[in-house]
Amino acid sequence: MISKKMQPLVANNSVIRAMFEEGQKMAKEFGAENVFDFSLGNPNVPAPKEVNQAIIDIVTNVDPVKVHGYMSNAGFPETRKAVADNLNRRFGTGFNENNIIMTVGAGSALNVILKTMLDPGDEVICLAPYFVEYGNYIRNYDGELVVISANPEEGFMPKFGELEEKITSKTKALIINNPNNPTGVVYPEEVIVRLAELLDKKQKEFGTVIYLISDEPYRELAYRGAQVPYLTKYYANTIVGYSYSKSLSLPGERIGYIVIPEESDGAREFFDAAVIANRVSGSVNAPSLMQLVIERCIDAKCEVEYYERNGRKLYDELTAMGFECVEPEGAFYLWMKSPVSDEKEFTAKAKEYNILMVPGSSFAGPGYVRISYCVSYEQIERSIPKFKELAKNYF
Amino acid sequence: MISKKMQPLVANNSVIRAMFEEGQKMAKEFGAENVFDFSLGNPNVPAPKEVNQAIIDIVTNVDPVKVHGYMSNAGFPETRKAVADNLNRRFGTGFNENNIIMTVGAGSALNVILKTMLDPGDEVICLAPYFVEYGNYIRNYDGELVVISANPEEGFMPKFGELEEKITSKTKALIINNPNNPTGVVYPEEVIVRLAELLDKKQKEFGTVIYLISDEPYRELAYRGAQVPYLTKYYANTIVGYSYSKSLSLPGERIGYIVIPEESDGAREFFDAAVIANRVSGSVNAPSLMQLVIERCIDAKCEVEYYERNGRKLYDELTAMGFECVEPEGAFYLWMKSPVSDEKEFTAKAKEYNILMVPGSSFAGPGYVRISYCVSYEQIERSIPKFKELAKNYF
Repeated sequence: MISKKMQPLVANNSVIRAMFEEGQKMAKEFGAENVFDFSLGNPNVPAPKEVNQAIIDIVTNVDPVKVHGYMSNAGFPETRKAVADNLNRRFGTGFNENNIIMTVGAGSALNVILKTMLDPGDEVICLAPYFVEYGNYIRNYDGELVVISANPEEGFMPKFGELEEKITSKTKALIINNPNNPTGVVYPEEVIVRLAELLDKKQKEFGTVIYLISDEPYRELAYRGAQVPYLTKYYANTIVGYSYSKSLSLPGERIGYIVIPEESDGAREFFDAAVIANRVSGSVNAPSLMQLVIERCIDAKCEVEYYERNGRKLYDELTAMGFECVEPEGAFYLWMKSPVSDEKEFTAKAKEYNILMVPGSSFAGPGYVRISYCVSYEQIERSIPKFKELAKNYF
Repeated sequence: MISKKMQPLVANNSVIRAMFEEGQKMAKEFGAENVFDFSLGNPNVPAPKEVNQAIIDIVTNVDPVKVHGYMSNAGFPETRKAVADNLNRRFGTGFNENNIIMTVGAGSALNVILKTMLDPGDEVICLAPYFVEYGNYIRNYDGELVVISANPEEGFMPKFGELEEKITSKTKALIINNPNNPTGVVYPEEVIVRLAELLDKKQKEFGTVIYLISDEPYRELAYRGAQVPYLTKYYANTIVGYSYSKSLSLPGERIGYIVIPEESDGAREFFDAAVIANRVSGSVNAPSLMQLVIERCIDAKCEVEYYERNGRKLYDELTAMGFECVEPEGAFYLWMKSPVSDEKEFTAKAKEYNILMVPGSSFAGPGYVRISYCVSYEQIERSIPKFKELAKNYF
C-alpha cells in the first residue's frame, strides 16, 4: 500500500518526533512538571506580544477577502518587500521583493529549493552532525546525500580537507546551518570566507554551479554579540531558507521565506521555478494571515537573552557534574558528549529519570546527545537534581 | 540551474496563475471595477464572521505557546476529533481522530496522499476535464497520468467504457472531484455506485489495491439540495482530501485535511506513512492557529446561496445571448462552450472586453472555457453588457 520510497521512513520514523509523542504521554502519566523534555525545538517562550496584537488588528481592520485570500504564489508583495528591506537594513544587502518568496516555514523553503535544483543523482553535501530531515528532503528529489564527518577536534567547524575531496562534478549544493542545530556553534566569518573560496574554486574547476543553501531558522539566536555572517555577501550562489518558527516562536504557523539573490547564477529563472515549485508541491502559498503579521512584526525582537540564560545555566551545571559539553554560541541546543560510547544507552538511562534528550546518531553524530533548551527556565531548574542523579551513574 | 523536471513547468507556467497576475495588472490600468476577472477560484465572499471572532478569541484567551506551537504532525487531536465528529454527524460515517490528518490545504493533502502511495510508473486516472494541477502532483512522484476523455454527450459524467479499458494492473488510483472543477456538475449517487462497482471488480481482477482519491474542496457548494455522496461509504479504499479554502473562504490560509477510513486496506500503515509524508514534504503540520479556528468553526456555514445566485445569473444571461453552458449544480464554475473551435482565440477576444476566462485546454477540455463566478454579484452584473458586446462577434 505504501510507496517503496516511504517504506524506510515508516520503518525509521523520526526519533525526535517519537520522543515528542512519548514526552506527551509521560507528562500525562507523571505530571508535566515531573517530565524534563529536552527533545524538541518547540519554543516555550511565547511569541512577542506584537504578534497577537497584529493578528487582532489585521482581522479587525483589513478586508477578510484580502486577509484570508490567495495572493501571488510568491506571497504578498508588501510582505516580501518588508523582508527584503529588513535584511538590507541589518546586513547591507541589496534585495527587493523579487528576491523573496514566502514559504510554509523553513521545511518547505528547503524542499522548494531542492525541488527547483535537483536532478536524480545530484549530490548535496551536509556537515555532520546535521538536522536529520536534510537527508529526507534530498531524497524527496532523488538527490544523493554526501556527509562530511564531524569535527569535534576543531569545535565542530567544517572539516575542510574532507570537504574538498568530496566536492565533485555532481555536487549541486552544500547545506549549511548557522547557528548550528544540533551543536549550538556559530561558524565565524573566517570559516565562511574559507568555505566560499573553496566553493568558488570548485565551481571553476568543474565548470558547474554549486549552491550554498543557508538554512537559517536560528539566525537571530546568537549569543554575546556573536555575528552570524550573511552568506549571500560572501558567495554569490547562496540561496537562503529562513523560518520565523524560532525567532518569533511561531513553529506551528509554518511561516518562512526563501532569498534568491540577484547575483546568483540564473537568478530570475530560479526564482520563477521556485515559485512554481512552491505551488505544485501543494503549499500554493505561505499562510496569508501570517504573511500580513510578519509584515507588521518585521522588527519584533526574539527573546535571545532567555535562551542564552537557559543555555548558560545548563552548560554550567552539566559541566560541573562532569559532563563534557560544547559551549553554546547560538540556537537553543546543547551538544553534550555521552559518558558512554553508545549514546542511546545513555538516553535510555536518562529516561529513567524522566529526562528526554535526542541521541546524536539522529544527527549523524553518534556518541553525543542533543539537549534542546527552548524550555522554561523553571524546567531547567527542576531538572538539575535529576541530572545530578543521572550523573552519579557515570562520574 | 533548474532541474529537468521543473523545466517544462517553467516553460508552461499555469495559465490560470498567469491570468491572475494579468488581472491584477489590468485592474491597476483600467480600475478594478472595469476588469471582469473570472479566472481564479479565489472566493470574493468573506469568511463567515465566526472565523475572525474565533481568531480573536483564541489569541486573546489561549496560551500562545499552544496557539502557535508544534503539535503532532497529524494535527491537534481536538481538531481532528471535531472534523471526524462533524463528518459522522453529517454523513453517518464512523471516523475518529485517528482517521484524520490536518494538512496545508487540499493541495498538500493530495500531494501527501500521492507521495504515500505512488511508486514510479504507477498510473493515476483523471477524468477530463480535470484540475490541471493533478498532473503536476502525480508527476511530483513519478506517477503516470492517464486521462479519460471528456463526455459532453452525457453531461460530463465519467465515460465508463473508456474507464474500464484504461484501468490496468498498474492503476494505483483514480482522482475524482465532486462537485467538479471545471464543469460545475455533481456526480449523483448512481454514478458513484457504478464507479465503486467497477473499481471493486478491477481490484479483484488484478489482485491490486486501487484507491479512489476524492478531492473535495467544493463539497459544501452543491445547489438546490443536490446530494454529494460521501465516497467512503460506497468504496472502502477511498482517501479523501478536503480544503476549507472554498467552504470557509480561507484559500490563502492553507487549511484542509485527509480522511483515511479504517476500512481501507492497510489503513493504519497508510495513516502513519501519510503523517511522515506530511512532515518530510516540508509542511510539517497544518498551520496551528487555523487548526484551532476550524475546531471552533466546524459548523460554520458557507454562503452557498451567494454562489448559486451568481451561477444562475450568469447561466441565464449567457445562454440568452446564445452561449451554450453546462447548468451549474455545484462548485463555482460555469463551463461554457466556446463559440469558435479554438477557445484560446475566444478568450483572447474576451480579453479585449476586459473579461478574463480560462481556456478549457488548461483542464484537458479544449473547445470550452471556465468562468469562475466566486466573485461579487456586482461584478457579474457589471460584466453583462461586456459579455453582450463579446457575443455580438459570434451570434
